[in-house]
Amino acid sequence: MHAEITAAWSFLAATGAEATRIPYAMLLVFGSAKLLAELFERLRQPAIVGEILAGILIGPAVLNLIRPDELLTALADLGVMFLLFRVGLEVKSSELLRVGGTALAVAVLGVVVPFVLGWGILRLWGEPQIESIFTGAALVATSVGITAQVLASKGLLHVRASKIILAAAVVDDVLGLLVLAVVSSLARGSVNVAGLATTAVLAVGFTFIVAKWGTRTLEKVVPRVQEKLRVGEAQFAMAMVLLFALSLLAVYVGVAAIVGAFLAGMALAESVGPRVHDLAHGVTELLVPFFLAGIGMHFSLAAFATPSTLALAVVILLAAVLSKFIGCGLGALRLGRADAIRIGIGMVPRGEVGMVVAQIGLSMGVIAPHVYGVVVFMAVATTLIAPPLLNLAYRELMERPSPEEEVFRLG
Amino acid sequence: MHAEITAAWSFLAATGAEATRIPYAMLLVFGSAKLLAELFERLRQPAIVGEILAGILIGPAVLNLIRPDELLTALADLGVMFLLFRVGLEVKSSELLRVGGTALAVAVLGVVVPFVLGWGILRLWGEPQIESIFTGAALVATSVGITAQVLASKGLLHVRASKIILAAAVVDDVLGLLVLAVVSSLARGSVNVAGLATTAVLAVGFTFIVAKWGTRTLEKVVPRVQEKLRVGEAQFAMAMVLLFALSLLAVYVGVAAIVGAFLAGMALAESVGPRVHDLAHGVTELLVPFFLAGIGMHFSLAAFATPSTLALAVVILLAAVLSKFIGCGLGALRLGRADAIRIGIGMVPRGEVGMVVAQIGLSMGVIAPHVYGVVVFMAVATTLIAPPLLNLAYRELMERPSPEEEVFRLG
Repeated sequence: MHAEITAAWSFLAATGAEATRIPYAMLLVFGSAKLLAELFERLRQPAIVGEILAGILIGPAVLNLIRPDELLTALADLGVMFLLFRVGLEVKSSELLRVGGTALAVAVLGVVVPFVLGWGILRLWGEPQIESIFTGAALVATSVGITAQVLASKGLLHVRASKIILAAAVVDDVLGLLVLAVVSSLARGSVNVAGLATTAVLAVGFTFIVAKWGTRTLEKVVPRVQEKLRVGEAQFAMAMVLLFALSLLAVYVGVAAIVGAFLAGMALAESVGPRVHDLAHGVTELLVPFFLAGIGMHFSLAAFATPSTLALAVVILLAAVLSKFIGCGLGALRLGRADAIRIGIGMVPRGEVGMVVAQIGLSMGVIAPHVYGVVVFMAVATTLIAPPLLNLAYRELMERPSPEEEVFRLG
Repeated sequence: MHAEITAAWSFLAATGAEATRIPYAMLLVFGSAKLLAELFERLRQPAIVGEILAGILIGPAVLNLIRPDELLTALADLGVMFLLFRVGLEVKSSELLRVGGTALAVAVLGVVVPFVLGWGILRLWGEPQIESIFTGAALVATSVGITAQVLASKGLLHVRASKIILAAAVVDDVLGLLVLAVVSSLARGSVNVAGLATTAVLAVGFTFIVAKWGTRTLEKVVPRVQEKLRVGEAQFAMAMVLLFALSLLAVYVGVAAIVGAFLAGMALAESVGPRVHDLAHGVTELLVPFFLAGIGMHFSLAAFATPSTLALAVVILLAAVLSKFIGCGLGALRLGRADAIRIGIGMVPRGEVGMVVAQIGLSMGVIAPHVYGVVVFMAVATTLIAPPLLNLAYRELMERPSPEEEVFRLG
């Protein structure tokens, strides 16, 4: 009789285990992220930091209630795609192109300084050449999602410094991809210049063409197509198709899917109504916590394993923060100290992008596990440090809008 | 030199293959579903049929561009959860409880008649006892998502027949789970009555308690909690936490996650504002095509393998349609012929629920592959047949609202 009960219950439990997986993951990640966001709002700290910490807390490093798996990674990837799409919807491409020169200077200096500093520190630490180069590369790429979320939640996407951050992040992504390609080729012993040049031309061409002519084209195409469509929520459906198509195309030409998502949003900014904003916002609100907590979930205590590793982690973190702050700040110095500081801080978070570089190095066997732990620590810590500093740097623009700052808002 | 180029490109292609997976799947499934939805709207056919056919078309049965994998299954599961949540938001639980008696009669007859007919046909066909019982069980459960989507898109959730369909579908789910548990125990050679009784009491208790007191409790709790919350979009965050919590709890007590999602929506119907409706609607619009195309993607040509299997498939399909139509229609006959027909048709789609039962039978080794193919054919075909018939049956209520029908809308 006991065996029978066990058999009947184990059947129900087995169906249950598979069936509970999705609601359990959704409840745990979304619920804990919002709980800590609420706590941080009450402590007058950025909610976004709470959501990342929620991931650290529920993840393998602390409570080990959940691990990053295929579903959570996919929801995180979709979350940051929708985040950048929503940010793109708020931005005029013409305004972004107008600040292109400054953004280019910010991005280039923001790539060179962190790379050289990261490489130099690891060489001084006695690590091998190729490992030092990979760590330098992991310090290069900015995770624009973190900064974009902070600025969007404060309604600060329209000020000059924010536009430069967004434009520089797009350039930064293209440069970061090229650095990664060069570094990976070096690890294999040869650099294919022709292949890299093709990638560079494709990536820059795609980005520039969509940014330059996307908005104008869609302003003509969207209303014409829409009046012919009979399917429900036709404008939203068109927006989603463009979002996924440009994200896919972006990956094909060699940049990140989120760059395509951002370009799709920007191209649609002038042609879709508030209904599309609201519906896309619903998806963003649901999925962004998975992106933020997902970063935290990758945090590990490997960086604290030995005093020497911990020391390296602290030095690399300092280098990561200072190198972007100084590099990007210098690139924007002609806009004045206040904007240079905002831009310097806005480019600090490395988030998921730095981790991806380190993961590739680890899977190629050119990065040791302790250095991987150090890079992950740096990637998570920079995302935690940036939001409160951003709030400080943007405080003036939030508190008292003056005529002078109105110019910034328009510029 | 050639080897170097290949190495450099294969690296980029390798990162690409992983990075393209998500935007490719999103674009293909969402894009093809909306394309066929548009086509079917133009042919004055139900858009939902187009979205299911899109899944058949891109899936393994025809073009084989994509297969149901973990990501697509998760998006489909989330899609039907949000669909039922959104439907719940439109429904007053008091009105659903008021039609409880009729709904119970509809659900019970709609379980008994299909089970007996399915079992009988397979026995007559000369199939083994246990396989016949499993096929009967696969004919039991209604996939309410299909009917709910058709009724919601026409604004017909508030008429009497629709409310009975929704209430009967909840009861049907509880009964379907018990049938499945009994059948699985039989397949193992013993039935644990005490265990089944516990499951039944838990499932019925959970459903009744949330339906009866959920709305009233949340009407008091939501405004109080909300005024204390400082996090952004607090009401949406609360709604999502309740949605995932009740979905999880539903699985724990032994009913489907979508029943929990429906109950969560219904409990919140009176206490959340239009903002939550809009944001949840955005998620629903994005994910429901994955649910619909996902059903189509499981379609296989196995049912057409031999003339004998094809004949069985046609007979089982007829039995599936007629048994629900007659069983549920009889249960609702005292409401008059028109409503009995609407309810009978509304309960026809088996969709993903029938497939799950057949999959369990297949994995237990008690269902032969050709019978599995027949059940999948029946499950997909019933979802394709029901929407146009529903449009016919509800046509009167759509075209000329009369005072008499106004009573239905209120009732």
